[in-house]
Amino acid sequence: MGQNLALNVAEKGFPISVYNRSFSKTEAVVERAAKEGVADRLAGYPDVASFVASLERPRRVVLLVKAGPPVDATIDALLEHLEPGDLIVDGGNEWYENTERRQARAAEAGVLYMGMGVSGGEEGARNGPSMMPGGPVEGYRLMEDIVSRVAAQVDDGPCVTYIGPGGAGNYVKMVHNGIEYGDMQLISEAYDVLKTIGGLSNEDMAAVFAEWNAGELESFLIEISSIILGKRDEMGEGYLVDQILDKTGSKGTGKWTVQEAAELATAAPTIAASLDARYMSALKGEREAAEGFYGEVGLGGPAAPPDVDKQTLVEDVRQALYASKICSYAQGMSIIQAKSEEKGWGVDVGELGRIWKGGCIIRAKFLERIKQAYVRDPKLANLLVDRPFAEELVSREQSWRRVVQLAVGAGVAVPGMTSSLAYFDAYRRGRLPANLVQAQRDFFGSHTYQRVDREGWFHTVWDESFASADSITTTSYSN
Amino acid sequence: MGQNLALNVAEKGFPISVYNRSFSKTEAVVERAAKEGVADRLAGYPDVASFVASLERPRRVVLLVKAGPPVDATIDALLEHLEPGDLIVDGGNEWYENTERRQARAAEAGVLYMGMGVSGGEEGARNGPSMMPGGPVEGYRLMEDIVSRVAAQVDDGPCVTYIGPGGAGNYVKMVHNGIEYGDMQLISEAYDVLKTIGGLSNEDMAAVFAEWNAGELESFLIEISSIILGKRDEMGEGYLVDQILDKTGSKGTGKWTVQEAAELATAAPTIAASLDARYMSALKGEREAAEGFYGEVGLGGPAAPPDVDKQTLVEDVRQALYASKICSYAQGMSIIQAKSEEKGWGVDVGELGRIWKGGCIIRAKFLERIKQAYVRDPKLANLLVDRPFAEELVSREQSWRRVVQLAVGAGVAVPGMTSSLAYFDAYRRGRLPANLVQAQRDFFGSHTYQRVDREGWFHTVWDESFASADSITTTSYSN
Repeated sequence: MGQNLALNVAEKGFPISVYNRSFSKTEAVVERAAKEGVADRLAGYPDVASFVASLERPRRVVLLVKAGPPVDATIDALLEHLEPGDLIVDGGNEWYENTERRQARAAEAGVLYMGMGVSGGEEGARNGPSMMPGGPVEGYRLMEDIVSRVAAQVDDGPCVTYIGPGGAGNYVKMVHNGIEYGDMQLISEAYDVLKTIGGLSNEDMAAVFAEWNAGELESFLIEISSIILGKRDEMGEGYLVDQILDKTGSKGTGKWTVQEAAELATAAPTIAASLDARYMSALKGEREAAEGFYGEVGLGGPAAPPDVDKQTLVEDVRQALYASKICSYAQGMSIIQAKSEEKGWGVDVGELGRIWKGGCIIRAKFLERIKQAYVRDPKLANLLVDRPFAEELVSREQSWRRVVQLAVGAGVAVPGMTSSLAYFDAYRRGRLPANLVQAQRDFFGSHTYQRVDREGWFHTVWDESFASADSITTTSYSN
Repeated sequence: MGQNLALNVAEKGFPISVYNRSFSKTEAVVERAAKEGVADRLAGYPDVASFVASLERPRRVVLLVKAGPPVDATIDALLEHLEPGDLIVDGGNEWYENTERRQARAAEAGVLYMGMGVSGGEEGARNGPSMMPGGPVEGYRLMEDIVSRVAAQVDDGPCVTYIGPGGAGNYVKMVHNGIEYGDMQLISEAYDVLKTIGGLSNEDMAAVFAEWNAGELESFLIEISSIILGKRDEMGEGYLVDQILDKTGSKGTGKWTVQEAAELATAAPTIAASLDARYMSALKGEREAAEGFYGEVGLGGPAAPPDVDKQTLVEDVRQALYASKICSYAQGMSIIQAKSEEKGWGVDVGELGRIWKGGCIIRAKFLERIKQAYVRDPKLANLLVDRPFAEELVSREQSWRRVVQLAVGAGVAVPGMTSSLAYFDAYRRGRLPANLVQAQRDFFGSHTYQRVDREGWFHTVWDESFASADSITTTSYSN
């Protein structure tokens, strides 16, 4: 990714110096620069000293190394040579608190330090990623001219903005990845329902996804899903996707998002379901054994009802996917808002909708609608109460429920879609059955409760035989 | 809880010394001891020095103070007076790593230190809780005679066992609480479905829960739910449960369980849904606003279909609740097994089934079945592949699906039941749609994939226009 970003910078007209611990990699990017016609603006250096000496002051250094200790080691090496007023920018997927720790350390040397999430993979780095820089705003001012040119460009500007102080940039990138997990899971469920319940062929599905990509679902992930579904297997007959093992890896940001949501007391069930689906996928051997075992116990695999109309199903699944996606984004945005409030970061969530429109993995037409929702109301409590989104949800609600009911009946797990629907149905309901849970907590733990009809906290002795210390009976159970 | 546990110890015939920072509390327990006829075995002390001096060596000290810094402060004070070979036992809901840190610190002074989860609330502490002690096994030997008498007693022994070294006791108690969240949420969903879809009155539901408590669902939480539902409101007309605000608090162990499941790459969607339901419940103002807002947009609240047969519904909900509960316990046990393996704790999960049968909040007839499952196969991969449980799930499957479909159609969120069902449907399926997700990851991030038909890791250039650095096109979306 470092190579591609360096070439991107050079291509945009900025002179750039490159250093890598292994000099052969530095040589490789110099060679690529020659081939790509930007050799005059890209120079490689064999050591940190000469690399730093080559830079104009205030120096602007971007790190793209593995998150964790390698970043600390690189900072150590750089601080020996940098001077007050210089800037270090870490472009990795770093845990935001590590960035904040390093900011404090760099500040002791008078050096500015930023954590900048970069999304878009190799291709985005080379041709325009979405960038999420966080840290001291003076640091951002030093790099703004470059990142504004290097980022993906959309109709309303470059896909970069100053996210906020501290580790805000890393944090927003982390949640971006959590949202990406959600999108991918929901698409895989749509695929599963179309295939397992609708009986669509890969060719059919490639066409369906291509068609969806011409409408409200238009996005990078839908587009590549169509390409993937249509890809023939070069090692054998048929389609490649059918030969791919159903085990999905993960690299930490989705897990962090789920853990942070829990920490912030923010429900993010669709993102959590997406992470769990990856974990379930990893149990391939257990799942195969369980399938065989349940066959013996008398339960076959998923079974489609006989009377499914393909065309209706395709349309229902499209609506269900879109509605589920809105709920997933609502969760991600809520996490960011909760953290921003806790930390006083002042993150502009509408701007996130804008900078994610290009360059990154979740880029989608839909993000313009998210931007607009927050333009209409920057203090919006939840995306679900933005009127245009609400109207879209209401018009898709019946399709959404039909798809979930169909999948539940057929034994096809759609945890992302059901979690989104449950999120919607809970959020839009003034009264939930949590009163019973709170009553239970008061019963066994004297946790007290509030009432709907008057102020204050109350405790009830629910049952004398449980509550009095003199006459308690304990119950226990055995077969 | 400390008072009650002390009285329990004294009642079982063991002499006990009591100390509290505020002497009035010490006096209170001495008074209670007199009333309860155990004054000869319980003595209060005004300071740590006299308290410690009153104990026989090796001294056995149980702490019941607020988790976190107060525990450290108490240890500081104790270590000034304790001698090598003495034992400290922390009975609070402590984060397991804090216990491990304190074990190392106490060990420097030659003092044994254990973290012991205690479940059962005030009433359990007084009459017999379920206890989960972890730490040095020599420490357990020093306290075994007492805790074996103090714990709840069930048909196959006292509800206490040595859990394992380090923080194993705290960890198991944490997951116990996560499971408790799951049980409570599932019960509240059953209540919601019966009430909102079935139209049952509180009186009806109190009777239904009482009936359920005579069968396979027999448990403390079902029993108290029946009592709660039948409780009249002393401040007004009608039933108390209807006047209780639908906001559920939480104190950290459920959150930790969800974060730990994510850390261990273990799916625990029912427990996560239970935590999320508490978080959603807290958004009372937002939910009320959203309900009004959706009314304006044309969507009313939950609506039951007209043709629901109450008797069928009650029976279906009972089956759905039981099946969902099995899946929730499967998740909790998987978390404990994963952690035990990672840390080398050697936790005997079947024994947990046994010691949870009495004293604690999740005590239930059902736990005997869990114990038996692990007696049959101590290496059981998952509760879902224990044959008796599998047979129970298969026989309840249709009811379970009907309830979820009905709730989904009516707009009643049942996130716990749907998460359990999705867990079941994913776990029992050899092939999941994770192949598409992994293909996407390979497409945009070169993450590689495995194949079903041959060994190795593969990468595909899915589409030239995305993959080649020379001819990349980026896409971006606006409008």
